[in-house]
Amino acid sequence: MALYNQITIIGLGLIGSSMARGIKERGLTDKLIGFDNNKEYHSTIQSLELVDDLAKTIENSVENSDLVILATPVGTYSEISKKIAPSLKEGSTITDVGSVKSSVLKMLSAHIPDHVHLIPAHPVAGTEQSGPKAGFSKLFHDRWAIITPPEGADKEAIENLKQFWEALGSNVEMMDPDHHDQVLAITSHIPHLIAYNIVGTARDLETVTKSEVIKFSAGGFRDFTRIAASNPTMWRDVFLNNKDAVLEMLGRFSEDLTALQRAIRWEDGDALYDMFEKTRRIRKQIIDAGQDEDVADFGRHQDD
Amino acid sequence: MALYNQITIIGLGLIGSSMARGIKERGLTDKLIGFDNNKEYHSTIQSLELVDDLAKTIENSVENSDLVILATPVGTYSEISKKIAPSLKEGSTITDVGSVKSSVLKMLSAHIPDHVHLIPAHPVAGTEQSGPKAGFSKLFHDRWAIITPPEGADKEAIENLKQFWEALGSNVEMMDPDHHDQVLAITSHIPHLIAYNIVGTARDLETVTKSEVIKFSAGGFRDFTRIAASNPTMWRDVFLNNKDAVLEMLGRFSEDLTALQRAIRWEDGDALYDMFEKTRRIRKQIIDAGQDEDVADFGRHQDD
Repeated sequence: MALYNQITIIGLGLIGSSMARGIKERGLTDKLIGFDNNKEYHSTIQSLELVDDLAKTIENSVENSDLVILATPVGTYSEISKKIAPSLKEGSTITDVGSVKSSVLKMLSAHIPDHVHLIPAHPVAGTEQSGPKAGFSKLFHDRWAIITPPEGADKEAIENLKQFWEALGSNVEMMDPDHHDQVLAITSHIPHLIAYNIVGTARDLETVTKSEVIKFSAGGFRDFTRIAASNPTMWRDVFLNNKDAVLEMLGRFSEDLTALQRAIRWEDGDALYDMFEKTRRIRKQIIDAGQDEDVADFGRHQDD
Repeated sequence: MALYNQITIIGLGLIGSSMARGIKERGLTDKLIGFDNNKEYHSTIQSLELVDDLAKTIENSVENSDLVILATPVGTYSEISKKIAPSLKEGSTITDVGSVKSSVLKMLSAHIPDHVHLIPAHPVAGTEQSGPKAGFSKLFHDRWAIITPPEGADKEAIENLKQFWEALGSNVEMMDPDHHDQVLAITSHIPHLIAYNIVGTARDLETVTKSEVIKFSAGGFRDFTRIAASNPTMWRDVFLNNKDAVLEMLGRFSEDLTALQRAIRWEDGDALYDMFEKTRRIRKQIIDAGQDEDVADFGRHQDD
């Protein structure tokens, strides 16, 4: 079922190209237009037939589209929305996939004309890989897509976007943008920040060599290197655009870590045990909620 | 090939029971004795036939054994070694699997008689699950076992233990105990500590509910819940027994995190990008070294 007569995806990286694949597989539009300013991706996009038409200019790409999706790092949104605003079709919807929502709403509101429905969204899905080759249509299956409609947004436009994400396999949740940014700060942004951080700390040691860090990484470290391999531009923009919530959560994280550090220094085994014992249940709840798989060690030994 | 006529494993949890399975599969001994003071495990140990004989007392379990393996939390070593010392066979070897080595050497040296070869070791392998059911013989395949022989240790006893770990599928590295504790502090202990910590921070928030943390955990948080589901007793003992190296590495981690926090506060995008961009390569090197698999998102979408 064609939910929109014409859809444009700006940015055909991991997320954009995964959406393109899902849209095509499920026939969610009659015509899918793509735009990517990274020319190195063009031959891949074309050989994989990710879109019906790879537009030459970003302005051209959005003309006549009923749904325009920004799937680029959020730091590009201001410039992009300013460029495409005059070409957007009356009554069309513009949305995005960025991991921050409050600043995105501000950036886009400044440029998007009133005759276009602005409805930001965020699929909570991804891998550590980047680019059009890394995408796959099932990326959004059983994951949550969060839609953060601004006050007074058109109900039909929201409902259509909801159906669109459901058609891509997601569950949909409506959320206030500020609350979204708090939730994602703790469930996604801080985890990425501390993963990047520990990989950096390990790299800079004098007493332990980098080859030792790599060799003995199966003790836990390797898990962190996965999310620390994520797209650096995307993550820079997330931190710059969710500053307040990230700093707030980071303050709490550091406070808690200092308490653990103190328990280690004073050899308070009971405090450590209490802390470590409480965290086990949450893993089980995540598995029960279908948000991770019930296999030990992420199934690493399944192929043995 | 029977490397030892009789082997005793004290503690048949994840690691002990995985070793038991590997020892039996490869016929590394004529007689495998087990002891576990957790009576709830006994029926599982017996129905899975993990050992030839499940001893009633810990003293009995080690009599006549040529290799005795401690596979209990390191906090139990002092008491256990005191108890079994008089029953250990002359010329036999006692080893362990603990994640700290310097304090283990001190604890065991205090009780183990001179006529027994004391050769601590540490297989860098595991999952977040515990108990005899969670074990599997291939846990050690292509992982590193670190042997930390004390000065003047018997060369033949070391060589036999090396062959034993190789027979279980591991690569073997010899290391000084203090250096081991530094390497593991950064590759294993700090990763576990910060994973436990962020799960605790997330649980204690007022603005984000626990059900939201669970629902939207696919943004990165769920990865941390895996290692934060590890055995709390084992990890309490690790931190109490590797205090100096952990505090040193934690100091560096916090220092680096403060620098990142400052870069976010002052919106220093270049500093953030530089930091995030450098960490990608280490993931590739870990995969190239065979210490993780070359699949996106830990292969979570493989079954879709």
